[in-house]
Amino acid sequence: MPHLPSTEKLILDLSNGWLTVWLNTPDNRNALSEDLAAELTATLAAIRDDRSVRGLTLRGKGGVFCAGGDVKAFMAGLSDGADHDAVAAMNKSGGALFQQVNEAPQVVIAMVEGAAIGGGMGLACCADIVIAAREATFSLTETQIGIPPAQIAPYVIGRIGLPAARRLMLTGARFDGAYAASIGLADEVAEDAKSLEALEADFRRGVLRCAPGANAATKALALSAARLDRNEMIERAGAVFAECLLGEEGREGVSAFIEKRKPRWALQE
Amino acid sequence: MPHLPSTEKLILDLSNGWLTVWLNTPDNRNALSEDLAAELTATLAAIRDDRSVRGLTLRGKGGVFCAGGDVKAFMAGLSDGADHDAVAAMNKSGGALFQQVNEAPQVVIAMVEGAAIGGGMGLACCADIVIAAREATFSLTETQIGIPPAQIAPYVIGRIGLPAARRLMLTGARFDGAYAASIGLADEVAEDAKSLEALEADFRRGVLRCAPGANAATKALALSAARLDRNEMIERAGAVFAECLLGEEGREGVSAFIEKRKPRWALQE
Amino acid sequence: MPHLPSTEKLILDLSNGWLTVWLNTPDNRNALSEDLAAELTATLAAIRDDRSVRGLTLRGKGGVFCAGGDVKAFMAGLSDGADHDAVAAMNKSGGALFQQVNEAPQVVIAMVEGAAIGGGMGLACCADIVIAAREATFSLTETQIGIPPAQIAPYVIGRIGLPAARRLMLTGARFDGAYAASIGLADEVAEDAKSLEALEADFRRGVLRCAPGANAATKALALSAARLDRNEMIERAGAVFAECLLGEEGREGVSAFIEKRKPRWALQE
Repeated sequence: MPHLPSTEKLILDLSNGWLTVWLNTPDNRNALSEDLAAELTATLAAIRDDRSVRGLTLRGKGGVFCAGGDVKAFMAGLSDGADHDAVAAMNKSGGALFQQVNEAPQVVIAMVEGAAIGGGMGLACCADIVIAAREATFSLTETQIGIPPAQIAPYVIGRIGLPAARRLMLTGARFDGAYAASIGLADEVAEDAKSLEALEADFRRGVLRCAPGANAATKALALSAARLDRNEMIERAGAVFAECLLGEEGREGVSAFIEKRKPRWALQE
Repeated sequence: MPHLPSTEKLILDLSNGWLTVWLNTPDNRNALSEDLAAELTATLAAIRDDRSVRGLTLRGKGGVFCAGGDVKAFMAGLSDGADHDAVAAMNKSGGALFQQVNEAPQVVIAMVEGAAIGGGMGLACCADIVIAAREATFSLTETQIGIPPAQIAPYVIGRIGLPAARRLMLTGARFDGAYAASIGLADEVAEDAKSLEALEADFRRGVLRCAPGANAATKALALSAARLDRNEMIERAGAVFAECLLGEEGREGVSAFIEKRKPRWALQE
Repeated sequence: MPHLPSTEKLILDLSNGWLTVWLNTPDNRNALSEDLAAELTATLAAIRDDRSVRGLTLRGKGGVFCAGGDVKAFMAGLSDGADHDAVAAMNKSGGALFQQVNEAPQVVIAMVEGAAIGGGMGLACCADIVIAAREATFSLTETQIGIPPAQIAPYVIGRIGLPAARRLMLTGARFDGAYAASIGLADEVAEDAKSLEALEADFRRGVLRCAPGANAATKALALSAARLDRNEMIERAGAVFAECLLGEEGREGVSAFIEKRKPRWALQE
């Protein structure tokens, strides 16, 4: 069991190998305030090396996922004292958080109800799996207030591709969960909260059948594929494969396969 | 107001921050002749640093978008005097044009009616937004005449992905606007010219709400994302964000947001 | 006519410029055994420089495409004598095969009936064109037995994009041909074997109209696009274009276009 941080802006619910992380500042529509971001960073760090936590689900309290950047922080950035470097540093710490979510060794599910605006949409794009309520509302409104969707750009592009990202970033168009699915932003669309939860449980069940170490190795390999040339990839893949096959999980997994039984790591949900 | 070049192969129509560029050589189905290409290059250069022009729309006269490369130029390339370097140079100037369209600081909309063949389909793929009439016809016919779709390859791949690009380049398959939408080539499909124009007006309205400088910075950042590693991207994004937030647009945009009013740059369409 | 290797695990059928490669070990569901892989490598090598073979179709005997890796080989890898390097080497030779299929100068069609699991799904992802029966079953089950889908990762990601690849790799979800089409894994879905064959014939007809040398040059250029920066790509594309236009195919193709006749390479199917 990991030692989870105590949190005020998040509610953490760990059960059966899965951590549900509720964004819990509905008063500001779960905006990515400095405090909330720091708690999310600490939470991800606490479970990072703990393979007993197989995945995590990000969800917002109050029927809203996340309304994006914190306008108060932008205002502070505009105040007399703030200079270019201070604003850039604040913004870069947001970028580090998105990277941390994207590269978490655990499987990350984003459950989007209500608004996922700007950085909130960016946060969803960092997940492995996105489930959206049909009436969820997405948009990238940054340039409507004169700023670029900067740190989220690689994750939005990575999730929906550059063409859709260009279009949405440059028009600020607002769209719902069904449209999100049509452009690959959402993997599944739910008609209501019950169906949203059933979809999340299905994905969770799938993950809980998979070996946690192999899943973490696979995710790291997949994320590195774009940065490696073909020969480097073949080398890296060969090494990762051998390590997994000859490790405890590989031995257990192949034996279980031959013996037609469930491997030890398979959890019932 | 930018000083636009005088053109013979293009009709330029600038109004309310938007430049409509009509390809106007319907006799050769708006083929990318040397003259037409030179005029397009000059036009894009003329508006490049002028943020009062928010976007441009590419459209073809005569009910056809663009029939692609200029077979007369290919023939000239085959004549006795032409050598490898001369042909390559001519072809590379086409590549420079596609790059210029793709990287224009303005939002580029392609309105595709009728044929968008070879380089014409490539030109559409350089736009930020593609709207197609249902009865538009697309195909990459190059290898049917023994030449590769070479300079357009990165833009076709960038727009529809490598798998669809491979399939279409290697089969020369012909398809319509609805199919174009199904593979992500078209963002929207229109049943008729009126609906095509309504869709274009919708996108334009969206762009005109966005800060032109922030949009240009966002587009440049998005286009650079594939070339930067994660840490370089975080640095670049942070710098671009700070520059925009502390600049005139950011100050105006955040103030307008707080004051619940429209920012100064928002144009009515 | 190429000199094809004699094969036991494959049935090779060469006719009218097209090679059909049947995986023919239905007893182990056409698993990628060392022998089968070696024969496939030899076959691809035999036709590599022969432009009279325009394409190849991969298909499995026994109503199954390919059940993936060979569990017996995994078991041998786990036996006492095997060390990390031996396992990695075996795995890397699989990676070299996938690369060889992906980069074959010919157009590769995968016809998927029945199971395409793990490496079998990876093999399909290396093709230029994938046609699937609606009742085909795909899944990436590797991490369920404790190993990563390592060598296939770049091809799965290249075919369906990183978001869908992450989701499918980390959940082991099973899906059919219709779902495969919805995520871009299959280009077309067939209701039955007859319709599958009709679709394959359509694609073949398209390819047989295209110049084989230009197609091979185009495929190589398309595959290199992700590794080249914009300026390198413009240079490379210009050189490839000039070589094709000034070569035999370009001269013939442009002449045929002007004379409104079929070029010499166009084969009837």
